[in-house]
Amino acid sequence: MFEVERIIRTALVEDVGAGDLTTEATVAAGTQGQARLVAKEDFVLAGIDVARQVFAMVDASVTFSSRHRDGDAVQRGAVLAEMAGAAASLLQGERVALNLLQRMCGIATLTARFVAAVSGTSAQIVDTRKTTPGLRVLEKYAVRMGGGRNHRYALYDGVLIKENHIVAAGGITAAVQRARKRLSHIHKIEIETQNLREVEEAVTAGADIVLLDNMADVQLREAVTLVAGRALTEASGGVGLESVRAIAETGVDLISVGALTHSYRAVDISMLFE
Amino acid sequence: MFEVERIIRTALVEDVGAGDLTTEATVAAGTQGQARLVAKEDFVLAGIDVARQVFAMVDASVTFSSRHRDGDAVQRGAVLAEMAGAAASLLQGERVALNLLQRMCGIATLTARFVAAVSGTSAQIVDTRKTTPGLRVLEKYAVRMGGGRNHRYALYDGVLIKENHIVAAGGITAAVQRARKRLSHIHKIEIETQNLREVEEAVTAGADIVLLDNMADVQLREAVTLVAGRALTEASGGVGLESVRAIAETGVDLISVGALTHSYRAVDISMLFE
Amino acid sequence: MFEVERIIRTALVEDVGAGDLTTEATVAAGTQGQARLVAKEDFVLAGIDVARQVFAMVDASVTFSSRHRDGDAVQRGAVLAEMAGAAASLLQGERVALNLLQRMCGIATLTARFVAAVSGTSAQIVDTRKTTPGLRVLEKYAVRMGGGRNHRYALYDGVLIKENHIVAAGGITAAVQRARKRLSHIHKIEIETQNLREVEEAVTAGADIVLLDNMADVQLREAVTLVAGRALTEASGGVGLESVRAIAETGVDLISVGALTHSYRAVDISMLFE
Amino acid sequence: MFEVERIIRTALVEDVGAGDLTTEATVAAGTQGQARLVAKEDFVLAGIDVARQVFAMVDASVTFSSRHRDGDAVQRGAVLAEMAGAAASLLQGERVALNLLQRMCGIATLTARFVAAVSGTSAQIVDTRKTTPGLRVLEKYAVRMGGGRNHRYALYDGVLIKENHIVAAGGITAAVQRARKRLSHIHKIEIETQNLREVEEAVTAGADIVLLDNMADVQLREAVTLVAGRALTEASGGVGLESVRAIAETGVDLISVGALTHSYRAVDISMLFE
Amino acid sequence: MFEVERIIRTALVEDVGAGDLTTEATVAAGTQGQARLVAKEDFVLAGIDVARQVFAMVDASVTFSSRHRDGDAVQRGAVLAEMAGAAASLLQGERVALNLLQRMCGIATLTARFVAAVSGTSAQIVDTRKTTPGLRVLEKYAVRMGGGRNHRYALYDGVLIKENHIVAAGGITAAVQRARKRLSHIHKIEIETQNLREVEEAVTAGADIVLLDNMADVQLREAVTLVAGRALTEASGGVGLESVRAIAETGVDLISVGALTHSYRAVDISMLFE
Amino acid sequence: MFEVERIIRTALVEDVGAGDLTTEATVAAGTQGQARLVAKEDFVLAGIDVARQVFAMVDASVTFSSRHRDGDAVQRGAVLAEMAGAAASLLQGERVALNLLQRMCGIATLTARFVAAVSGTSAQIVDTRKTTPGLRVLEKYAVRMGGGRNHRYALYDGVLIKENHIVAAGGITAAVQRARKRLSHIHKIEIETQNLREVEEAVTAGADIVLLDNMADVQLREAVTLVAGRALTEASGGVGLESVRAIAETGVDLISVGALTHSYRAVDISMLFE
Repeated sequence: MFEVERIIRTALVEDVGAGDLTTEATVAAGTQGQARLVAKEDFVLAGIDVARQVFAMVDASVTFSSRHRDGDAVQRGAVLAEMAGAAASLLQGERVALNLLQRMCGIATLTARFVAAVSGTSAQIVDTRKTTPGLRVLEKYAVRMGGGRNHRYALYDGVLIKENHIVAAGGITAAVQRARKRLSHIHKIEIETQNLREVEEAVTAGADIVLLDNMADVQLREAVTLVAGRALTEASGGVGLESVRAIAETGVDLISVGALTHSYRAVDISMLFE
Repeated sequence: MFEVERIIRTALVEDVGAGDLTTEATVAAGTQGQARLVAKEDFVLAGIDVARQVFAMVDASVTFSSRHRDGDAVQRGAVLAEMAGAAASLLQGERVALNLLQRMCGIATLTARFVAAVSGTSAQIVDTRKTTPGLRVLEKYAVRMGGGRNHRYALYDGVLIKENHIVAAGGITAAVQRARKRLSHIHKIEIETQNLREVEEAVTAGADIVLLDNMADVQLREAVTLVAGRALTEASGGVGLESVRAIAETGVDLISVGALTHSYRAVDISMLFE
Repeated sequence: MFEVERIIRTALVEDVGAGDLTTEATVAAGTQGQARLVAKEDFVLAGIDVARQVFAMVDASVTFSSRHRDGDAVQRGAVLAEMAGAAASLLQGERVALNLLQRMCGIATLTARFVAAVSGTSAQIVDTRKTTPGLRVLEKYAVRMGGGRNHRYALYDGVLIKENHIVAAGGITAAVQRARKRLSHIHKIEIETQNLREVEEAVTAGADIVLLDNMADVQLREAVTLVAGRALTEASGGVGLESVRAIAETGVDLISVGALTHSYRAVDISMLFE
Repeated sequence: MFEVERIIRTALVEDVGAGDLTTEATVAAGTQGQARLVAKEDFVLAGIDVARQVFAMVDASVTFSSRHRDGDAVQRGAVLAEMAGAAASLLQGERVALNLLQRMCGIATLTARFVAAVSGTSAQIVDTRKTTPGLRVLEKYAVRMGGGRNHRYALYDGVLIKENHIVAAGGITAAVQRARKRLSHIHKIEIETQNLREVEEAVTAGADIVLLDNMADVQLREAVTLVAGRALTEASGGVGLESVRAIAETGVDLISVGALTHSYRAVDISMLFE
Repeated sequence: MFEVERIIRTALVEDVGAGDLTTEATVAAGTQGQARLVAKEDFVLAGIDVARQVFAMVDASVTFSSRHRDGDAVQRGAVLAEMAGAAASLLQGERVALNLLQRMCGIATLTARFVAAVSGTSAQIVDTRKTTPGLRVLEKYAVRMGGGRNHRYALYDGVLIKENHIVAAGGITAAVQRARKRLSHIHKIEIETQNLREVEEAVTAGADIVLLDNMADVQLREAVTLVAGRALTEASGGVGLESVRAIAETGVDLISVGALTHSYRAVDISMLFE
Repeated sequence: MFEVERIIRTALVEDVGAGDLTTEATVAAGTQGQARLVAKEDFVLAGIDVARQVFAMVDASVTFSSRHRDGDAVQRGAVLAEMAGAAASLLQGERVALNLLQRMCGIATLTARFVAAVSGTSAQIVDTRKTTPGLRVLEKYAVRMGGGRNHRYALYDGVLIKENHIVAAGGITAAVQRARKRLSHIHKIEIETQNLREVEEAVTAGADIVLLDNMADVQLREAVTLVAGRALTEASGGVGLESVRAIAETGVDLISVGALTHSYRAVDISMLFE
């Protein structure tokens, strides 16, 4: 609820701090200005209200209007928003607004490409916890705007039993049982598996979701057949745009893609003054 | 001074929050563990002490040892660090440490490639304010570890008079004079120019640094000749690895590259438990 | 991870603030002291490490030793912990430590009574979000120490579709489908029902957990029969110690009890100086 | 001044955090709603403006109107407030508002019962520092709304010399003199006594207030006679509703009751949507 | 309790922020250093432990030893403390430590002069709330180190009914009665008076302390006689070193001096490196 | 950007905290009031918008109007501002507003006297880092309002190589070269010198600004002649109003004066209620 406010405040403190030397020295107090945010390439929009909030936090009297909504596919040249107000305020909010908006659109756009690549299959693209420290709430939101779905948000809201937990618990069956016994009834249990034997053990032990770690497509297909709907199946590990379609066609329910939030490219957006 | 601590604390709150459900449910209290951070590709290291601090903030009793230093070129397979301590602490710090370290190494590595590309010329690669909101102190540090140099840190510590400031001030000469009059004597004055006429006006007005915005190489060369050492020259605008060498050979002093901090790729590092 | 630290820090600022007038005026600097935390009645212990952390945050050189662990049933007269250090530090931590410890033990003790009351049935006692603002992490922990289980922690980590959500979504089936479509695959879906017809609709729509709101025991029994293992069943609404056994015997899986965290009584613990 | 804001903000972060999953999944953006806070039992109102502020902090556009004022005795069925606004905002503020309001009313109501019990005597009911960590400002306010008076707020604003201070200072007389010498002239000095001899020593030494710790009624009466108006007298120690009248009739000026803030029961209030 | 830490942290963030450019550029990592804090004039010491804490917060491994204690009269040339550790840490803590220490010693020294000026009379020198915003805890402490006493700390811990309160309450008697009725029994009531008639009304109404505002010495003397021990008397208003003795000789109990904290001069202390 | 807000918030928490006892006890809720800020002596105004913000943060409905602007020379008796609103809000903001405003005007006024003293010479008066911890942004602003100019803001935005840096780097030339190599191109390099030999070495090494530390006027004059425009010259060290004119006449470009921010006297301003 106050998380986006924290992000913007931190970013403004970081960039403006004790003052904008250049603007204070060159722009007379009271000077008004107008500016537009313009797309310099095609992309999926995410973060337009974050940009709005940046300017509102710099100066509540700046106006910000937009005809676009997050999730829209925008074209090169599109005017994303129009702002008017004190020139100093526009100049001080510019970089923070762009730094956030360009990254969020980059994530949404990359996600949309992955989603398109698996179109027609039953697989869903989900994100990971490989997000930029401090910006997770915005990055997971951008994934949704690109058509992807979120995996667990953090260590505190979802369960994923990995290899080290399994070793510590004394095996897959022990780990699932222990988790079932200690966790709240509201949590599904997901567990990582390396081969078909582990998949079978996990499902038998009662796992709700089976993570198929770094398996070849043929193995994924066998795992899906083996599970046979007794649990959800999730493919994971080094998934790229070139490989995702084949993975989706194995019949897995979910494909988690770390690249969505750790290897996106910021899209090109300019703020033009009039 | 407390900035890195803030970043790590924010990241841990974001990722661990009210608790690590999986570990609490599956790993018995008191279980000890050992783990290694291993490079899965070649890259330039940056952030090893940040990783160390992550684990120290999770649990002061975790040990962390490394034979590598930031700035080192490490090879695929290199063991970046070895940790030992409570298994739960290692598991809880893992993702935050990797999320920070992989990004910082990504920036250092990309920077090193740009620096290598201009090797033998007199041009220096500098960064911009196009950094990830909240992480600037780490990203600018990573640029230095990759062999690049920092441009101004923020709006508060350096002066860069851009087109909108010039318009508001009533021209280049007026803008420089106004800045010289109002700013502290400790600040150099940099001003953006679009063509040779503006370059000449800027230098004559007393600018210390002239930013040559989006100029073609031939124009850059003419600008360098025109300035003739009266000011520093900085090329800027959409600089890529394929174009940077030719720009450097025009004789400019500085080349600023936004991509260093907005279009890097996180390097691949694994944390392996033993 | 930093949540308990926040609670203690807030409490110490609240109680000590700019200084402990009485101690500063009457106790000579350097005076050492010893004290014991003593149970004045029988109860279930919860929070002994919170008390330890209070004194550690007041003064890192205070020693604190205890032979008891959270979850222990302690008897009137038991020495919960022994402390030694600067007398001023013991005096300044006293009230905050007691205020937290007495409340946490109160919750654990009340929970244990509810758990005992349903002993031998298959029902589990779970808590609610009716916790003291700011202290949830400690109160939910105390419920576990008393043998209860946690329901969702907050609005962000679990799904409970209540009557108003159902109305807004256009009915039970629509609400469940909408939630299934929009939520991450990691979340179970729980939905509130008022009668058997709604129970059947919820289960058919695919709800994982059905909340049976304020139903009479006979109705609960019918609902359990109707659900027949297709979903978990949770009884809720004004559950007291006198009524909980009969509810448990209806066969429901879960009984949520707001009183655990909103109507407990702080247990009596004294800090005695020697 | 910013203390209530801190409490509400902490509570909202705790309960809503990264988002309200259920509402986001089931309630269409833009859906408006209306709701009422309704008393489900008789009680003394305290905290109506805190509830108002909760909704204002969730969403400044929610309207909140009430015909009741803190301190009012409200009857079962009374509509405490009416709210209108975005349905999502009403749902997100609901639990935090109720958690605070129900506790504050609980304290005011219990206080009012103690005050009524001593009606007609000259004794006043005062609170203690046995408050819920982090909520003291609200709990002490609620005591006043119930007709009680506040004792010192914290260690920093009032002086109460207890047994351990007396031992450290070398006796009652020494402790009072030392305090008088070192404290600001604005502070009254209160000191704890165990028997009549100590009472006499305290008064003679110049104490402004004498705390009569755990004395039987007959002893209290003798102490009041002995003090004879030379100081205020305060009875303290395990005071309950059944014993408070007899204590008041001994003639003491003040009766401090820890139960007001550590053993109250949250009153029953519902938020009904229309 | 955490107030001094907050002050130092704020000061270090303010002065060091993202880094000490000069030291990073010129001092090799690992360089060790030694330094002394030396008095350049005679003064009363206050704040030596604050200086110690500054260096400890910069770098826990810096050593700091001092043979002096707050309240000592030190002579020009005295070595206040000796430090050793990383040269960079000494350089980064230097200015913050001096900025705090020089101000605190300035206050203690000025206070000592006022205290000396009234020596032999029964008057005590007390401070006011005219302190530097954010530094009150240190400034009030420095007053005590100079031999002065503290007046109320803030609006929340003491009562001083001023002219505007009197007008709002409907007169002196009404104001005192209203305050007596509403305030906790732990608070003394002080009220401002302008003339003898008001003094008499205040005392009769039961004020504990009478503030004699801007009265001439002859009037002060009459007021003291009139009060005749029924209340404490406090002279206030533009008191200077040249006038304070005469005021003290009128027999008032207290003289409050705003200059102690708003018109002191920082003493001269150097940090010398070896 | 949020720095002034932080200062005011800290000051209000410090002064009002859990509440204004006196006002709550004596002023009926809803009482309205009007007040004026009146100059009690002649001075240069600085901080009028800070005072405005104090009242706005106490209570957004208080009105505040002023016909004066920072930098104005105001005369004794001038009405600086007029406020109207809830009496309680005016009373609660009074001390914080005055504590800030009186100090800022004190600095501006002292600065203006130094500036006047060097009138007609080419020297400029600049401040130092000897500011009050936590208030630097306001104090440096006040210096500008008094006609002075700012030196570097902090360690992070400007370079000043002092004696200890020189020793650590191995001499003046080495220090300047090292700094030039490692620092961003945006920073000017200033270096401290003790004698003419060092001045020459500094200028030859490429320093942009030469600090002439504690030199006699005759030596300053020689240094200015020696530098001959190759760098800026700054005189520093114990500069007072009586000595500053002679220093300015030596031809130095800058004179830094620590006294501007560490030895000013708060001006006298009253807040009068009507």
